[in-house]
Amino acid sequence: MSAATHPAVVVGIDLGGTKVRAALADTRGRLLHRLTEPTRPGIALIAQLTDIVTRLSVLAPDALVVGTAIGGAGVPLPDGSGFTQAPNLGELGEVSLVAELRRRLGHPVVIENDVNIAALGELHAGAGRESESFAFVSVGTGIGVGLVLAGSVWPGVSGAAGEVGYLPFGSDPLDPRNQRRGALEEVVAGNVLAQRLPQPAGEPPHTAREVFAAAEAGDPLAIRALDTQARWLAHTLLAIDAVVDPGLYILGGGIGSRPELLAPLDHWLARLGRPGLRVRSSELGDDAPLHGAVHLALAAAITPSSLPRESEAS
Amino acid sequence: MSAATHPAVVVGIDLGGTKVRAALADTRGRLLHRLTEPTRPGIALIAQLTDIVTRLSVLAPDALVVGTAIGGAGVPLPDGSGFTQAPNLGELGEVSLVAELRRRLGHPVVIENDVNIAALGELHAGAGRESESFAFVSVGTGIGVGLVLAGSVWPGVSGAAGEVGYLPFGSDPLDPRNQRRGALEEVVAGNVLAQRLPQPAGEPPHTAREVFAAAEAGDPLAIRALDTQARWLAHTLLAIDAVVDPGLYILGGGIGSRPELLAPLDHWLARLGRPGLRVRSSELGDDAPLHGAVHLALAAAITPSSLPRESEAS
Repeated sequence: MSAATHPAVVVGIDLGGTKVRAALADTRGRLLHRLTEPTRPGIALIAQLTDIVTRLSVLAPDALVVGTAIGGAGVPLPDGSGFTQAPNLGELGEVSLVAELRRRLGHPVVIENDVNIAALGELHAGAGRESESFAFVSVGTGIGVGLVLAGSVWPGVSGAAGEVGYLPFGSDPLDPRNQRRGALEEVVAGNVLAQRLPQPAGEPPHTAREVFAAAEAGDPLAIRALDTQARWLAHTLLAIDAVVDPGLYILGGGIGSRPELLAPLDHWLARLGRPGLRVRSSELGDDAPLHGAVHLALAAAITPSSLPRESEAS
Repeated sequence: MSAATHPAVVVGIDLGGTKVRAALADTRGRLLHRLTEPTRPGIALIAQLTDIVTRLSVLAPDALVVGTAIGGAGVPLPDGSGFTQAPNLGELGEVSLVAELRRRLGHPVVIENDVNIAALGELHAGAGRESESFAFVSVGTGIGVGLVLAGSVWPGVSGAAGEVGYLPFGSDPLDPRNQRRGALEEVVAGNVLAQRLPQPAGEPPHTAREVFAAAEAGDPLAIRALDTQARWLAHTLLAIDAVVDPGLYILGGGIGSRPELLAPLDHWLARLGRPGLRVRSSELGDDAPLHGAVHLALAAAITPSSLPRESEAS
């Protein structure tokens, strides 16, 4: 079996709490085939992910899958065997997600935090292509930052770098009610933005998407809600800048990537005395985690340490 | 001239706005001789620093000075030729501090921000010896952080990492009066701590040192002033943690290194929901910048790129 007859491909997976998105890519990182389906949390997740990789590989019958990477809404365990703090992915018990997938797939499998993997995507294929360092600021269900410093993701000593929801402003950080998801997250999370519109009686609550639509239609409450969102986002960029000076901010996530936020954000940055911060919207949008996962899978496939799997051979 | 008859030594300099401290050290980083004198700002600084290196070298007549490093209260220019934003060091006009000192001394000369160089000192010889990553938080005249990530100082893309005085809390960050030195610095700077005691009429204003003395003597206003200082320091650690998760905090500087702050700091960290942060006081105190400068000078002396000085030979 030669490389010429079996070109190498990899699979990148964006594993969210509600849906899984996956792509097969060539060694230059180009996405060749994609699929999306609802997440099956818990122990069924292993069969689902194995099945996804298999189905994608069938779409490129001549190629050989040499690596899979998964970005997930959780913190990778220090040994890289699975996610912790990932309530949306369900309970795997004693099973190691990564070891089990490696055993079934027969190639290297690696994982990363979803925001960090999106930052990697922007670095290799998006708005961070020209920059060695930047902060990828994702605002959606929650807020999180992927820090790329000198070409590498800085994950933090305990994997918690970029958990900026815990920045001590926005709401009172001394109030225990604000300490679970963090004082800042209490004012910028997607459900909080949605709740800034009056809730319709007897109907499902508003969504963040509806706030953007209402603002576009001229609803003054919705416009004010987005202004408040931009205000706290500006405070967030100022805080990141004061600590780490990443040189560039890339805004992503379902809320953060909306271009409507840029003008009010500029206004608030000027009011905070920092009109010169470099800010741009994500170029890749929803595809950022896929691109990041593909690059991580390629790196895992060519890193010698990921190839021998002594522990599984014994 | 052989290495055996002329052991290599280096000079580390802590260049403050009011005084210069310098030390001669061997290649293992041990401080052999020291001196301290008032800073002569402006163009006289070059003669002063040349003179200091010469006088220290005379104290080790058999040794050869192979490098000098200077930590200064300013931001190193991108080309490393001198400091910017260093009002206390005076005006050098067109003269390059580093090039001129290299020319006069005939060995590599490098510079670094004073807080970053203190962080390097703690990494090599102090409370950071056992850690690859930590945040060195210096509180004195102002507040600044040196970030050591995976064994290296992260200076920031524009040299401004760790300028946490600009964190947007403590005082109102939207008030332009708080934007010059930063909303946080407005509540933690040394002069602010001193002003929390009633000022004596017709006498010099209190100093931060006097606040600590008064607190030790049981003065309730002074005790409360230190509690306020600890409160904002706790918020600062929380913010650094949310952004960069450095794993360890080392408190330094004239105010930050005082052990009296540790108990109220623990209290406020617990109230903020983060009782588990690892915090310790600087082990080196005033010597941290000297140790850092010595290690930087050693690194500069053995880095090939610092040895050829083509631009000066032409």
